[in-house]
Amino acid sequence: MRLTEFCERLDDELRTGDFADLDASANGLQVGPERGTVERVAFCTDGVRQTFERAADWGADAVVVHHGISWGGIERITGRTYGRVAPLVDHDVALYVSHLPLDSHPELGNAAGLADLLALEDREPFGRVGPEHVGQRGRASDAFTVDELRETLAGELSTGGQPVRTIDFGPDEIRDVAIATGDGSDYVPEAGAKDVDALVMGEGKQKTYHEAREAGLNVFLAGHYATETFGVRNLQDWVETWDEGIETTFLDVPTGL
Amino acid sequence: MRLTEFCERLDDELRTGDFADLDASANGLQVGPERGTVERVAFCTDGVRQTFERAADWGADAVVVHHGISWGGIERITGRTYGRVAPLVDHDVALYVSHLPLDSHPELGNAAGLADLLALEDREPFGRVGPEHVGQRGRASDAFTVDELRETLAGELSTGGQPVRTIDFGPDEIRDVAIATGDGSDYVPEAGAKDVDALVMGEGKQKTYHEAREAGLNVFLAGHYATETFGVRNLQDWVETWDEGIETTFLDVPTGL
Amino acid sequence: MRLTEFCERLDDELRTGDFADLDASANGLQVGPERGTVERVAFCTDGVRQTFERAADWGADAVVVHHGISWGGIERITGRTYGRVAPLVDHDVALYVSHLPLDSHPELGNAAGLADLLALEDREPFGRVGPEHVGQRGRASDAFTVDELRETLAGELSTGGQPVRTIDFGPDEIRDVAIATGDGSDYVPEAGAKDVDALVMGEGKQKTYHEAREAGLNVFLAGHYATETFGVRNLQDWVETWDEGIETTFLDVPTGL
Amino acid sequence: MRLTEFCERLDDELRTGDFADLDASANGLQVGPERGTVERVAFCTDGVRQTFERAADWGADAVVVHHGISWGGIERITGRTYGRVAPLVDHDVALYVSHLPLDSHPELGNAAGLADLLALEDREPFGRVGPEHVGQRGRASDAFTVDELRETLAGELSTGGQPVRTIDFGPDEIRDVAIATGDGSDYVPEAGAKDVDALVMGEGKQKTYHEAREAGLNVFLAGHYATETFGVRNLQDWVETWDEGIETTFLDVPTGL
Amino acid sequence: MRLTEFCERLDDELRTGDFADLDASANGLQVGPERGTVERVAFCTDGVRQTFERAADWGADAVVVHHGISWGGIERITGRTYGRVAPLVDHDVALYVSHLPLDSHPELGNAAGLADLLALEDREPFGRVGPEHVGQRGRASDAFTVDELRETLAGELSTGGQPVRTIDFGPDEIRDVAIATGDGSDYVPEAGAKDVDALVMGEGKQKTYHEAREAGLNVFLAGHYATETFGVRNLQDWVETWDEGIETTFLDVPTGL
Amino acid sequence: MRLTEFCERLDDELRTGDFADLDASANGLQVGPERGTVERVAFCTDGVRQTFERAADWGADAVVVHHGISWGGIERITGRTYGRVAPLVDHDVALYVSHLPLDSHPELGNAAGLADLLALEDREPFGRVGPEHVGQRGRASDAFTVDELRETLAGELSTGGQPVRTIDFGPDEIRDVAIATGDGSDYVPEAGAKDVDALVMGEGKQKTYHEAREAGLNVFLAGHYATETFGVRNLQDWVETWDEGIETTFLDVPTGL
Repeated sequence: MRLTEFCERLDDELRTGDFADLDASANGLQVGPERGTVERVAFCTDGVRQTFERAADWGADAVVVHHGISWGGIERITGRTYGRVAPLVDHDVALYVSHLPLDSHPELGNAAGLADLLALEDREPFGRVGPEHVGQRGRASDAFTVDELRETLAGELSTGGQPVRTIDFGPDEIRDVAIATGDGSDYVPEAGAKDVDALVMGEGKQKTYHEAREAGLNVFLAGHYATETFGVRNLQDWVETWDEGIETTFLDVPTGL
Repeated sequence: MRLTEFCERLDDELRTGDFADLDASANGLQVGPERGTVERVAFCTDGVRQTFERAADWGADAVVVHHGISWGGIERITGRTYGRVAPLVDHDVALYVSHLPLDSHPELGNAAGLADLLALEDREPFGRVGPEHVGQRGRASDAFTVDELRETLAGELSTGGQPVRTIDFGPDEIRDVAIATGDGSDYVPEAGAKDVDALVMGEGKQKTYHEAREAGLNVFLAGHYATETFGVRNLQDWVETWDEGIETTFLDVPTGL
Repeated sequence: MRLTEFCERLDDELRTGDFADLDASANGLQVGPERGTVERVAFCTDGVRQTFERAADWGADAVVVHHGISWGGIERITGRTYGRVAPLVDHDVALYVSHLPLDSHPELGNAAGLADLLALEDREPFGRVGPEHVGQRGRASDAFTVDELRETLAGELSTGGQPVRTIDFGPDEIRDVAIATGDGSDYVPEAGAKDVDALVMGEGKQKTYHEAREAGLNVFLAGHYATETFGVRNLQDWVETWDEGIETTFLDVPTGL
Repeated sequence: MRLTEFCERLDDELRTGDFADLDASANGLQVGPERGTVERVAFCTDGVRQTFERAADWGADAVVVHHGISWGGIERITGRTYGRVAPLVDHDVALYVSHLPLDSHPELGNAAGLADLLALEDREPFGRVGPEHVGQRGRASDAFTVDELRETLAGELSTGGQPVRTIDFGPDEIRDVAIATGDGSDYVPEAGAKDVDALVMGEGKQKTYHEAREAGLNVFLAGHYATETFGVRNLQDWVETWDEGIETTFLDVPTGL
Repeated sequence: MRLTEFCERLDDELRTGDFADLDASANGLQVGPERGTVERVAFCTDGVRQTFERAADWGADAVVVHHGISWGGIERITGRTYGRVAPLVDHDVALYVSHLPLDSHPELGNAAGLADLLALEDREPFGRVGPEHVGQRGRASDAFTVDELRETLAGELSTGGQPVRTIDFGPDEIRDVAIATGDGSDYVPEAGAKDVDALVMGEGKQKTYHEAREAGLNVFLAGHYATETFGVRNLQDWVETWDEGIETTFLDVPTGL
Repeated sequence: MRLTEFCERLDDELRTGDFADLDASANGLQVGPERGTVERVAFCTDGVRQTFERAADWGADAVVVHHGISWGGIERITGRTYGRVAPLVDHDVALYVSHLPLDSHPELGNAAGLADLLALEDREPFGRVGPEHVGQRGRASDAFTVDELRETLAGELSTGGQPVRTIDFGPDEIRDVAIATGDGSDYVPEAGAKDVDALVMGEGKQKTYHEAREAGLNVFLAGHYATETFGVRNLQDWVETWDEGIETTFLDVPTGL
């Protein structure tokens, strides 16, 4: 399959163009000779030297990631950036990136995958970024206690051995759950305003504690990496269904963050 | 003591004006009637409803914090902001804020305090922000192992019961230590370029894991709150030495973040 | 009535959201605990310490003003701003602001009220600001002389004892009248281009004299305050018609400017 | 005298270059063929069609004004701008402009001239604009009452028949006087902070009333034009002293604003 | 014919308003007394002193140009700008400018005229600028060789005696041709991506050589002036068809650039 | 020699840091693994695929160029950029870039080299860019005629077979010469104001013709490439003098532009 066509299919499904002015990430093809072909594709969350080297070892023609290497432009291909670009160029591996478009996809996205895990119903978009939303909210058919929700997350996610932290200023019984994968710290006010019982996010910040307290909200910090493998794995499953017989692999490199 | 004079002394010592274009925080007096007087001053890290209410209960005339309420301007005094402003105004408590100026102070600052704790020698500025530095680096007279340094931090800091996380891609023996309190995630490249053995920071981000790995660096995540009580406590000690007989208290509200 | 619902009704009627990118004023609720309730509402043109104190004395739950306290963000709640915020917070008075949305409203607005006073017919929007208009123009059924129009304005408006100034470079007989309440100095060119006979504004600037002269236009400076009481008084009348039995008052504090 | 040399002498004395980033006005030569010569120069406050035509009628080679025609760039030489440019070009009259540099000059400037009129002593800069000041403050050897100061201003200034308005929330006896000629409405807070007894300005705005009230300040609105003839008349006197025998005239066109 | 109406007709046909945010040129009337009338109109590519003087000598009431004098605002009417404005004002010649709107017009525009010359078929827009296109592409019914296309251009265009330069890294046989008149150097990547055989432009830059080489593209540098006389001559022809009997002339001043 | 030290020596000599805010080019090391070493260095004007491949074929460890690949940041390493980066990464060739710093250097720079060629005396900086100058001016001991100067340039420079174009609106006898290598089109006004007899530049624009005419100036367009080989060849000579025994080569790829 031509690399160009591979990228176009993903761009179409993920509406890459709609996020051009919203996302610092340069989504779509970030590294690649455009006239290449694609038979083997690796999927992973972070586009870094370790995953690029593993993709090259596996014989990938392309690697699809959530976190790429171009955030507002690469000034110099030196130091850390050189260390990331070199294995791609040396082994002719193209890099395709989908950041907010992949968070945002209503079925394939990171928040959608986490909402599936929690079996939330009555889904609605959550986590407003301009005209788009990068999260989801929904309702649990059976309420969770704080401990049950933490244990569910800790048991199912790839947390790299780190605990799931809770900030439990909300109700004991949790039915309405909002999800903001990755860095969710900007969405506590929206969760407070929408009167959900809990906000599940990846990574918080210092301000998250008091914002949760003042909003009377339960916040679960399940890990940036742990909450953001859904999107790339869903893309992998989707690519597997194509007629082109593309071989795929998922590279799991948990960071515990 | 007149509130105006109180603020001027702090502004002079902390060089507040030099940070006007560097810091999103509006440093100096953020809330207050300017013609007030100051006899009792509370010190704490976070300026939030909980600490403002405790300061008011204690009878404070002013509260001195590291994290204030004006970051690039307050558009509306509603919701969470109203909940923070109201206890100050209702009880005539002035709010004095010092963010980057307090990180940066070579003796009283947060990084200085943490470097004191680790008994680092040959101190130099670290953590460049424009023409200023918000961290420090130095050399341990006796090398730490990774475990020893983690245990020292966990044992001495107010971590709110949370563990100190290590990302140990650096040497086993740690002599040269860089410090960036609070959110230190922007300073991994500088630490890598300066060939220190370890970077001690408060709070990291997802990117920190692979940046540390690619730089061959040990990173210690000791907690945003836990690494940022030094500055306000040092200010408290300094104010206690004045002739004016100001009464002080420190309000410890660890967030575990 | 819940404060939230009170604000929503006004926001809907005044189309507050449509002015978000046009107006430096943060329109809508500027100060308030959001979960409050509203039974007594004061209306006035200027949101300042004097009017806030009078509203508090009268027992207002909310005060609705044309000129609020947040214009591009409040950096510090100190000095003059503290003096304005304190009476609101101390007496639990919410502050609702409508600047350009209230100038612009086709029936309730300031320009509409002044056009009603002059009995102008064939009204059209005037005073373009982006896609909106903050003034009106219309035609007098009986022409005014310059003196008649000045005397009408001086007789009917709350000018605080100050004269209505005329710059009379236009025709002796005035039929077509444009209105730009408050600071109208940006709209002389538009009035010149549209060939009206007179522009009635509140406050002018030095440049207004020669711009009027070069455009061959009569300009009437009737006072910023004097031309901007219509909107808040119309809002008051409208709120009085609601079923909720809200008690209202209008606080008249002419500035003579 | 060559026009180039004429402009350079004024630019040097007025420090035109130091205001390049502070002033919207394009100070210095705004219209002119650079290789022209100068024998007759008209001086006036406002650079407008009326004054340019009068300058041309008088046979001026150049006209020196405080308010020019280029404020942030001329997009089109049409309409009002064409009406101003045409008499200059048609009669080969060069236009030299000095806005903030002329407000600011410590001896020749507008504020300096008004301070001379009031015989203020112990002069200091007032009215901060970046690193410069556009006003002055000083101390009257004999205190004024509010009425005395108003009458002095009304009697001496070219007010075009308009009254001097007072907003008298300050002390009855006025010793310390700050001066901000032209539009002085941005300087009420500085006057309040510096505890002067009165601020004399040209033109105010609606907000001036309450700002003066809340600062406990006397404000005198003496007219934009009336307070800004000093600078150009002082320049005229200075040019008269040159050896080149340049003939001069002052064109007095009061606006009453 | 009134000048205002003359300008409105051109603005309508050329969709001047749609280019307001895309073009540094202030399109439409740039110099003129608005209330003037138009009986004789000169057309030329460059609005400069030489063409303005020739237009005035011919007795023009207006001159219509592709390159005007206001690009992002005129700060001062001095030096070169004075030398251009003076002949217009002195002889009451209005200046009408159409830059990108005239490049872009699908029948009257510069690219359209050059595509007519080359008898290109199946025309499509080329040369994207925001939502507009400033060039065209099309297909030659009979293929050109590189030499044939160069000779056609050299033979038909007003090149001022300068050669047409070719950079011939594309195919020997040229069927698909893209056109970007004037400075075409920004459009080599678009031409490369669209797989045309040749890009005909006016003026290139240093980077054009290697960009053409790396894209495998033939580039023809036919001259900025030489490729941009079509638009103004097409406007001239169009104005000639009006009922108003306007007399016209075309002023040919080739620059050889 | 370590690559880091190689870059530091060049950065020091060329004052790379002083141009950080003036130059769109990211000067200094643009591509490279920083911990590399340098024994063989190629020098050329343009950093493009062709020169990078030739440098790799020659066995270069580094290539030093005037025109690099990062101008305001690389958004994606795809298409043309991939084609340029790949030969560098594949063959471990580092890329060092010096744009304005190399134009500007008083002895080694491009303008200096061209002034040497013309044997100009009494050199002064010319071509102001912020606080720096990117050109030079000087005086010929024996005056040139226009033809003599053109022939000198055509005879000595690497013009790729293209003629040197003259725009000869200046004096017949040329003594004072200003030089702006590469794209010199922004410096015609400065040359006009400084009353030089001729401006020698690389590449002009359409506007250059009339600007030269209106300034009464001779302009010589000697080619962007042809005027910008001096700097890199001077750097080569300088590196040859070092004790490190670095082998060098110059890659001459004239563009004729």
